[in-house]
Amino acid sequence: MKILLVGYGAMNKRVAQLAEENGHDIVGALSPTEENDCPYPLYDSVTTDLPEADCLIDFSHPTLTKEVLNSAITLPMVIATTGEKETLFDLFTEKAQSTPVFFSANMSYGVHIVTQLLENIAPLMDDYDIEMIEKHHNQKIDAPSGTLIKLLDAIKENARPDANEVYDRTQSTEKRDQKDIGISTLRGGSIVGEHEVLFAGHDEVISIKHSAQSKDIFARGALKVAEQLVNKQNGFYTYNNLYV
Amino acid sequence: MKILLVGYGAMNKRVAQLAEENGHDIVGALSPTEENDCPYPLYDSVTTDLPEADCLIDFSHPTLTKEVLNSAITLPMVIATTGEKETLFDLFTEKAQSTPVFFSANMSYGVHIVTQLLENIAPLMDDYDIEMIEKHHNQKIDAPSGTLIKLLDAIKENARPDANEVYDRTQSTEKRDQKDIGISTLRGGSIVGEHEVLFAGHDEVISIKHSAQSKDIFARGALKVAEQLVNKQNGFYTYNNLYV
Amino acid sequence: MKILLVGYGAMNKRVAQLAEENGHDIVGALSPTEENDCPYPLYDSVTTDLPEADCLIDFSHPTLTKEVLNSAITLPMVIATTGEKETLFDLFTEKAQSTPVFFSANMSYGVHIVTQLLENIAPLMDDYDIEMIEKHHNQKIDAPSGTLIKLLDAIKENARPDANEVYDRTQSTEKRDQKDIGISTLRGGSIVGEHEVLFAGHDEVISIKHSAQSKDIFARGALKVAEQLVNKQNGFYTYNNLYV
Amino acid sequence: MKILLVGYGAMNKRVAQLAEENGHDIVGALSPTEENDCPYPLYDSVTTDLPEADCLIDFSHPTLTKEVLNSAITLPMVIATTGEKETLFDLFTEKAQSTPVFFSANMSYGVHIVTQLLENIAPLMDDYDIEMIEKHHNQKIDAPSGTLIKLLDAIKENARPDANEVYDRTQSTEKRDQKDIGISTLRGGSIVGEHEVLFAGHDEVISIKHSAQSKDIFARGALKVAEQLVNKQNGFYTYNNLYV
Repeated sequence: MKILLVGYGAMNKRVAQLAEENGHDIVGALSPTEENDCPYPLYDSVTTDLPEADCLIDFSHPTLTKEVLNSAITLPMVIATTGEKETLFDLFTEKAQSTPVFFSANMSYGVHIVTQLLENIAPLMDDYDIEMIEKHHNQKIDAPSGTLIKLLDAIKENARPDANEVYDRTQSTEKRDQKDIGISTLRGGSIVGEHEVLFAGHDEVISIKHSAQSKDIFARGALKVAEQLVNKQNGFYTYNNLYV
Repeated sequence: MKILLVGYGAMNKRVAQLAEENGHDIVGALSPTEENDCPYPLYDSVTTDLPEADCLIDFSHPTLTKEVLNSAITLPMVIATTGEKETLFDLFTEKAQSTPVFFSANMSYGVHIVTQLLENIAPLMDDYDIEMIEKHHNQKIDAPSGTLIKLLDAIKENARPDANEVYDRTQSTEKRDQKDIGISTLRGGSIVGEHEVLFAGHDEVISIKHSAQSKDIFARGALKVAEQLVNKQNGFYTYNNLYV
Repeated sequence: MKILLVGYGAMNKRVAQLAEENGHDIVGALSPTEENDCPYPLYDSVTTDLPEADCLIDFSHPTLTKEVLNSAITLPMVIATTGEKETLFDLFTEKAQSTPVFFSANMSYGVHIVTQLLENIAPLMDDYDIEMIEKHHNQKIDAPSGTLIKLLDAIKENARPDANEVYDRTQSTEKRDQKDIGISTLRGGSIVGEHEVLFAGHDEVISIKHSAQSKDIFARGALKVAEQLVNKQNGFYTYNNLYV
Repeated sequence: MKILLVGYGAMNKRVAQLAEENGHDIVGALSPTEENDCPYPLYDSVTTDLPEADCLIDFSHPTLTKEVLNSAITLPMVIATTGEKETLFDLFTEKAQSTPVFFSANMSYGVHIVTQLLENIAPLMDDYDIEMIEKHHNQKIDAPSGTLIKLLDAIKENARPDANEVYDRTQSTEKRDQKDIGISTLRGGSIVGEHEVLFAGHDEVISIKHSAQSKDIFARGALKVAEQLVNKQNGFYTYNNLYV
């Protein structure tokens, strides 16, 4: 594939490297800021004469993403930008009439698979207690992680609408309530990211776990999506309908 | 429910105890051998005048199970007997015309769920290497476990028909083949049973794991199935169509 | 060994069963309350004529334990009673002049080994972040578990006197402090007890984990201690000096 | 510290980067081959006029290491070269008379700690079954890993001299022998390296596990050792006597 990058931050640099390792071409990067270390043709505006490409991959920021969505560009689009979700969704819908548009706030294919597993399994596990654990490095300041919240939402939307999240059991001397979902957040060393969901029942525990070893999983996920998207009809796609 | 036990071995003793703890009644046990420690009415043949019941639960052996299936009994039947699979299946089909019949060689609900997860996930994981691990106590003589083989079959039937099982990597100096499914079998202490399937990809690993703490999971599974089966129409059921 | 039980509650019943399976004899149980289901000679007071024995094992309560310690009994004593720690310690010291006395609030040999590992390792791990996790069944009302506190104390006394326990990271938006020890408490299903300590550093994590499958580990631990204690000189013993 | 690198391969490049991030200086690299991408002064022979330094770190090959050991250099030496073990040991002993010399075939501090834990714990675990697991990426051709063998040796030398390694249980229908040490070798994805040792007993399992996230642990280990070594007296050091 010939790929146009939107933005040229850390994540798109990895996209470029992995793309080339897999035989794809980066035809340029669209970025309004000067990028001194960029070995590809740079385009500073959506109105410039952009190179021929099969798709674009956007790990940038809402301002630039909105420009792309409002522009005349009709390449298949893989959008990984976060923030201004509602505005972007309106623009996705519009753009999707003239090209395939994919969006995910978490481009990891593995996290998508785990999300889907939870959507499938949670409704079948009424008799089981759910506990969630996430582990990240000691520099992360938010807790719990965005990915944990995504997984929690998948459970609540499909099976436990009235769940109570419990973050600290030491403050109570009551037995666990069946509606509880315990959430444990660990921070230490340079752990990239682990997420585990336990379904604990009578005499058995089922665990579903995702371990990330590097942030490359997001860049790889975007490339994998792009490979699918270029063969799709116009429309709006997420992980829920891309691989159907 | 009023439950008739077929067989009165270790597993049906646990079924009886758990059933009573959950408010059910054991109306008797069908067993051709004398059972000195059985507190319930004993029936030594399928032709005797059996008590009124809502269902029967059979953890026995093929000889007795065949007698039940060939008899005039039309109670909903939960069959957990293993062995003589083909003969039994023919009889299941016949009996299923006049009553709901459920069969599983592994009554654990949790193992069923894990099997189903693997059926769902395996076709989506072409780029991932699959490795399986099972752990059991030091008295177990067969390896790998029957449950591991069941999980392996679920993967092979749904995604990897030409997989090569690899039991010992130390005998080779070749790189891992993508078709390999590595199988590790651990034995130690009094471990009741753990089964884990790893999907290892670029920079991420997804793990699905089942840990059993006691063999009660089989007795509990049979009771849970019975509670569903009594409300079903005549027909043959397995875990794949019971909860639909 | 000929063993005299002190108390005849759930734990000493298991001690009796496991002792007999291992070729020991239970010569009686000392218990001031009537114990209808006790198949051994019952002695209702420390002043009665007690049977000949090689040692006593005490899983009872401080009142009875104090009577034993204040009595003329000079059998080797394995004491697993909890509560009134200070009073008991004074009495241990006194009794230890005339017989070997062993005490532990957690009789599991495995938990002792893990405690010892932490005492050894913690002083060597200054550059690592420590996080602790414990998991128990959904009926447990206290959190964190007594065993976790024991392990935490082993770390604090040997390496991190000024550690801050952190039970809930979601209430802060600060980076992890090096002095933090994160403590996660999970409750679900019928989990008997798991304790794990993580040392997370740059690009590596060391984990030490103990998983209990049944409360028998306490009964077994007491028997194992008794087998050592009967060959010891008078004195006060804990797990720290018994196996030296 | 002022550090002289011996060799300038992948590992010493990481040593250089991490050293500078931690405030140390790389004063040059000793390498007989031309290193085009080396930003430090290059020295092609041990007889050239080498720069002033506090220590040297050697991730090279036996030929170069032998030259260093046979030379007049008397800097504190951190040697991580593998191969020709016996010849090197003789030279270490000689050189250690005039400078502190440290050697380890595995520079990871975490692996050292786990080795030490096993040396401590193994003699106390006679009643437990030992099983070992290692996981690595799908490009690794040797099995089991060198680190697993190192850990196995630590167990055998300290507690189980007559252990039988078992690599494949599926070829036998016998119960586990107490002398067995089961070894499981998994290969998949891009796993950097995990090693786990299980001690499985009656109703409990103790696990000691090391997970590596990047090969940087070897470079970091070497730096950490160097920081100690520069304050040591002449002599030969390994991880077993460096931190005493």
